[in-house]
Amino acid sequence: MKKIVFDLLNNDNGEEQAILGAKRFLQENSDYFLILVGHEQLIKKHLSDYIDRIAIINNETIVHIESSPRDVLRTQNSMLEAFKQLNESNADGILSSGDSGSLITLSSLKVKRLLGIERPAFMPILPTTTDKKMLLIDAGANIEIKPEYLSQWAMIASEWYSILFGSKKPIVGQLNVGVEEYKGSEITKNAKNILKEVSKSANFVFNGYVEATNAINGDIDILVVDGYGGNVFLKTLEGTFIAFSKLLKNILLKNWKTKLAALILKRHLREFKQKFDYRNTGGAFIIGLEKIVVKAHGGSDELAFYNALNQIKIGIENNISTILNKKFKEADNED
Amino acid sequence: MKKIVFDLLNNDNGEEQAILGAKRFLQENSDYFLILVGHEQLIKKHLSDYIDRIAIINNETIVHIESSPRDVLRTQNSMLEAFKQLNESNADGILSSGDSGSLITLSSLKVKRLLGIERPAFMPILPTTTDKKMLLIDAGANIEIKPEYLSQWAMIASEWYSILFGSKKPIVGQLNVGVEEYKGSEITKNAKNILKEVSKSANFVFNGYVEATNAINGDIDILVVDGYGGNVFLKTLEGTFIAFSKLLKNILLKNWKTKLAALILKRHLREFKQKFDYRNTGGAFIIGLEKIVVKAHGGSDELAFYNALNQIKIGIENNISTILNKKFKEADNED
Repeated sequence: MKKIVFDLLNNDNGEEQAILGAKRFLQENSDYFLILVGHEQLIKKHLSDYIDRIAIINNETIVHIESSPRDVLRTQNSMLEAFKQLNESNADGILSSGDSGSLITLSSLKVKRLLGIERPAFMPILPTTTDKKMLLIDAGANIEIKPEYLSQWAMIASEWYSILFGSKKPIVGQLNVGVEEYKGSEITKNAKNILKEVSKSANFVFNGYVEATNAINGDIDILVVDGYGGNVFLKTLEGTFIAFSKLLKNILLKNWKTKLAALILKRHLREFKQKFDYRNTGGAFIIGLEKIVVKAHGGSDELAFYNALNQIKIGIENNISTILNKKFKEADNED
Repeated sequence: MKKIVFDLLNNDNGEEQAILGAKRFLQENSDYFLILVGHEQLIKKHLSDYIDRIAIINNETIVHIESSPRDVLRTQNSMLEAFKQLNESNADGILSSGDSGSLITLSSLKVKRLLGIERPAFMPILPTTTDKKMLLIDAGANIEIKPEYLSQWAMIASEWYSILFGSKKPIVGQLNVGVEEYKGSEITKNAKNILKEVSKSANFVFNGYVEATNAINGDIDILVVDGYGGNVFLKTLEGTFIAFSKLLKNILLKNWKTKLAALILKRHLREFKQKFDYRNTGGAFIIGLEKIVVKAHGGSDELAFYNALNQIKIGIENNISTILNKKFKEADNED
């Protein structure tokens, strides 16, 4: 049986939504075993039908970060406990909706890295203006980078992209302040040269620099960048979406005429909103590790948690960790 | 008479829109003298009524950048000529809608810096979701920075903000990957400490870190950041706005019912669009210099050029360069 560890605490909507997400996943996947970290009584109340396919680790301590993400190591909180379980039970993946920094910290310290990967990175799935999705890497785990990180991440991301969206050779773009060759920092330029070189024998096409202005127009499948640029990009995208939605809502509620228009547009606007609401795009991966680590959004509901468990399942069923380890081993031997 | 130099070439809409913008400005400001760099015949054709308040420098060479912004120095193009005129005629300001990199290069090399300012920076005016505008600095001139740049720029930006929008003590925020004290690079953290210290005796309130998610909600008047983060922020904002507008348009054109709704909303949506269309927010300043340098958008029309000339005028009439030089001199003496 395949095993996933699930930290049920540390989310904004309380533990129940997480448990209900787990329930739905258990219903539909009889070959999966979940190791659940949270309030034992609450878990038992909801999941009594699945008692033979779950292990319950009672823990009621949420993560509390004061001065550094490393604070996660200082209490016996559910996230730390979940990582302990990941190793002890030899599970395949782990899900949490808690603080990103803590999750990155634990991923770095408690999970073995893939061969040849220097740093794990944060990889959310983003919508584009077309029907396609894109992967962003790194969205904030590594504020400063070495040039070679980007090509390592691009290799992992392209493997994930193929599995998730079926594209054999995804297109990788590098976020920069301009598309001209002379633009960007020395690290950016060096990273570009390495990406160009690596792409010759890798499972992705490298499209060079991309400006943020055009990054979500669907031309690019994977956007690679240091965690600083990636974080600013992601949060500006989210912020603009929120601002845009609010302003549009104000227009639609202006008077009875605009309310009539709102009524006509309701269904279409809902589709648009759902597409760009980052809570609906799935959990973010923390990649570069031998286990599959997924961070669900802090505001996840039952459906979002269920989807995040499915993301891990897709990775497990496609043997992503074995494939990646093999690839990097080969790359290592060629050197 | 006050003098402004105007590079009429190097814009996407051709020279005529620039000339018409100049014409409108001359009509309304009888105490201004414009030094116009462009096609002599075309200028004469439109501005024969103002011949005593203009100087025409015939130049038909547009800026062509191949491998570096420094290429702007290699031809006798109109932008280079305009900077030459700025110095020779002792004009107060200069306007161009040409390549940003070239403009930064010439600003750095040909214009004297304000006392105590190490690097000029790019400062566009941005809309927020409220009625207020905000200044972003640096939007891309300095990809890498020293920590002390941000406080130098904040001082200049706050002076401009007061002049442009009447606020006595504008609120400065520093763009970062999170608001927690421990987040960000060492440079970011050092810059924050300096900003905190400088704000005690400066004309601005320092509000600490701001995340991109909330940066345009009107809480912040001035957003300071290195040119890398600022550029990604600005371009993501522009790109997302364009993408959302396009998607909204598609919804509105879906069928006769949605077209009816579009008709009802037309006026409101136009207001909304104009507010966020970055072409309507005015030219971007290149600050840190003893002269006022403004970059009009590459797609500027008559009105945009006219507005950009007015921006320079506001700076001139408020003696911004003298005030800033005095301020920095005082700061220098206190050290």
